[in-house]
Amino acid sequence: MKKTDVAIVGGSAAGLTAAITARRHYPNKKIMLIRKEKLVPIPCGIPYIFGTVGSAQKNLIPDTPLEKHNVDFLIDEVVEIDREKRSVKTQGGEEIVYDKLIIATGSLPMMPPIPGFEKENVYPVYKDVERLNSMQDKMKSSKKVVVIGGGFIGVEMSDEMNKMGNLDVTICELLPHCLQLAFDSEFCAEAEKLLEERGVKILADQKVTSIEGNKKVTGVKLASGKVLEADMVVVGIGTVANVELAKKANLRLGPTGSIWVDRTMRTIDENIFSCGDCTEKFSFFGGKPSKLKLASIACSEARIAGANLFGTQRESVGTIGVFSSAIGDRAFAVAGLSENFAKQQGYEVITGTSEGPNRHPGSMPGMANQKVKLLFEKRTKVLIGTQMMGDNAVGELVNVASACIQHKMTIDDIACFQMGTHPALTASPVVYQFVNAAESALLAMS
Amino acid sequence: MKKTDVAIVGGSAAGLTAAITARRHYPNKKIMLIRKEKLVPIPCGIPYIFGTVGSAQKNLIPDTPLEKHNVDFLIDEVVEIDREKRSVKTQGGEEIVYDKLIIATGSLPMMPPIPGFEKENVYPVYKDVERLNSMQDKMKSSKKVVVIGGGFIGVEMSDEMNKMGNLDVTICELLPHCLQLAFDSEFCAEAEKLLEERGVKILADQKVTSIEGNKKVTGVKLASGKVLEADMVVVGIGTVANVELAKKANLRLGPTGSIWVDRTMRTIDENIFSCGDCTEKFSFFGGKPSKLKLASIACSEARIAGANLFGTQRESVGTIGVFSSAIGDRAFAVAGLSENFAKQQGYEVITGTSEGPNRHPGSMPGMANQKVKLLFEKRTKVLIGTQMMGDNAVGELVNVASACIQHKMTIDDIACFQMGTHPALTASPVVYQFVNAAESALLAMS
Repeated sequence: MKKTDVAIVGGSAAGLTAAITARRHYPNKKIMLIRKEKLVPIPCGIPYIFGTVGSAQKNLIPDTPLEKHNVDFLIDEVVEIDREKRSVKTQGGEEIVYDKLIIATGSLPMMPPIPGFEKENVYPVYKDVERLNSMQDKMKSSKKVVVIGGGFIGVEMSDEMNKMGNLDVTICELLPHCLQLAFDSEFCAEAEKLLEERGVKILADQKVTSIEGNKKVTGVKLASGKVLEADMVVVGIGTVANVELAKKANLRLGPTGSIWVDRTMRTIDENIFSCGDCTEKFSFFGGKPSKLKLASIACSEARIAGANLFGTQRESVGTIGVFSSAIGDRAFAVAGLSENFAKQQGYEVITGTSEGPNRHPGSMPGMANQKVKLLFEKRTKVLIGTQMMGDNAVGELVNVASACIQHKMTIDDIACFQMGTHPALTASPVVYQFVNAAESALLAMS
Repeated sequence: MKKTDVAIVGGSAAGLTAAITARRHYPNKKIMLIRKEKLVPIPCGIPYIFGTVGSAQKNLIPDTPLEKHNVDFLIDEVVEIDREKRSVKTQGGEEIVYDKLIIATGSLPMMPPIPGFEKENVYPVYKDVERLNSMQDKMKSSKKVVVIGGGFIGVEMSDEMNKMGNLDVTICELLPHCLQLAFDSEFCAEAEKLLEERGVKILADQKVTSIEGNKKVTGVKLASGKVLEADMVVVGIGTVANVELAKKANLRLGPTGSIWVDRTMRTIDENIFSCGDCTEKFSFFGGKPSKLKLASIACSEARIAGANLFGTQRESVGTIGVFSSAIGDRAFAVAGLSENFAKQQGYEVITGTSEGPNRHPGSMPGMANQKVKLLFEKRTKVLIGTQMMGDNAVGELVNVASACIQHKMTIDDIACFQMGTHPALTASPVVYQFVNAAESALLAMS
């Protein structure tokens, strides 16, 4: 039997960040991270294994941060939490007694209730090096791949697989547009156009009814009766919280079936915290249950859990939902609510959009068109969402919006926002799209 | 005699933005912009004329926004404001009666009190196409140029002139480092190293005592007695508010000699507003007079002035001071106070720094090292400054910090900040430098 002050179950983004945070805040505590994977893929990097990066081995979370922060780690699977004894038991027969425990068991790929998903060469995207390797091997010998799901993971996987040149890639999406859960249709349409120009085929508004083939997949059947030929199928329709261990330990689950926590990331057991994809979340907007699962949310939660272990210091404000993606050299990003989703949630909204060059003058190198849409709650004029596209800097521009959303900035606050601008780096201060979109929302009010 | 509802004097960033803002907020008013320049250079783009962009004619603020927003414009110089009659008189003999007036007369290059500045081939950087053209002509036939002043303008001018290949470029800076008014010495040193690697010579901690030569400049004499040979001298030591017109009209000036305004950008005359470089500013930090002059501040002030013309809607919060620059493909940016300056102002500060790759995994294209330093007021843990370097996205990352500074976010707020991250666009959420710098500042406290 081993003893530790802090045990952390799970070694992906949330577990690792929780361990580092715990070390920073509690320099004298013994901290142990237990994970079942020998090698841990960088979750957001997975689609890039199949094109840009080249292999799962080149997309690993290094162990050096654990070593550097003096975190013990054990590669073994935790199979039981004994809440009374305050211990965890592992597959390998170890028992580790903890003072505080953090569960960061992440998520597993969601499988749709459609016959045929067990067939050979159907690949849900597991965060597992061996499975990713076998998927990549198959990819090299395939000719036609169907990607089920046109969300971020499906879009990124398709674009990367398509880049390799040997594959005919088709996305099947249930909704009328790819990326529709994040973006309004005008942004979805731009992303789809880019993908198609790059050679990815898109079949939107299409329900998959079965996976065809005997032992091995041969095609994907749609509700229309049409069968898409495929020697490989990738499934990217989302993930579900991995709560098996928590359930077995009788920890409370929340309304979406993830591990319930309060705003300090504490479960119903005062000595057990949970963070990351396995954890129940609530929306920054109105506090409703939120199904968002993002590495960036996981890390924010881990920094709350890790700091609160031996004294409450931090509280979650709920998920804002900030994400970005890239198709070629074009970046797409979103923070907060889309117009579509906000209306569904009962918000009365006004929007403003601004579009123009991201350099000044426009002849500066790196010039690209940048488009920013802002969404405000009509009565209070508070910012509740943004959608953007442009060059790579949009990956940070969306974080400007995130900070403004978190602080409930209004149209006028944003119109007077003091941003830095530079000819070689940003739009001109006169046309700065983030600010001008606010001004154009004001016009829409009058 | 002409009549207008709104007259705006000055056609650079502030004047143009004030005109557009006035139009947006007051769709039925007659708005007239009067400027003396036929062609208006984009102020921040001026250094790039001499290298990347190629000519002053390619760095102009277009007139299309004025036309698009139905703003009349007159190219003529306003020589007098008659506050009683509410009219302005021009060099060309026009008299224009206004209801509201916005002064946006900008700034002029500062000239140091050193003998010899009147000599031929000494160039203060005027925002004037003809002068810029003649400067560029001279540059083409020169061999040795000395740039007096190692602030942003001096550094950018030097790097661009050096890029052309035919010039030997030396910066003379009075302070121990270039860029020292904005950055702490560790960032200055990095910028200087880059500049020197690119071929620019730097003489810091050097006082210029005179400009040598008969009619034409032949050299620059330093306090040490050393003379730097030069057939061209560029002066970039800052700018002074152009307040001649305001002074003549007996408008009140502020402690730095610029046009005094209240927080709504109104002068002591209730019908006259002022915005941009000609306008007195106060610091976001403690409200002290601020000498900062930036196009982005000018535009923010213009959006306040333009909106408030016929009804007060917006107030200035004071200058945060957000700026960025680039040396080659490396960007440098700052928001708020530097450590050095904060201490001079009596702040007790703690700092945190984080450095690492801006992509995840590091093998993603565009990988560059990114460094973020954050500065907090010690007792309240409120963010008061940041300095950054990295790739072009640092131009927007610094605006994340600006939003956080404006909302007085604390170390813990930033540690839990919800940023979007993506392998192709940003640092990993685990090492995201803006957040980790906050965590490391916490460590520094304990």
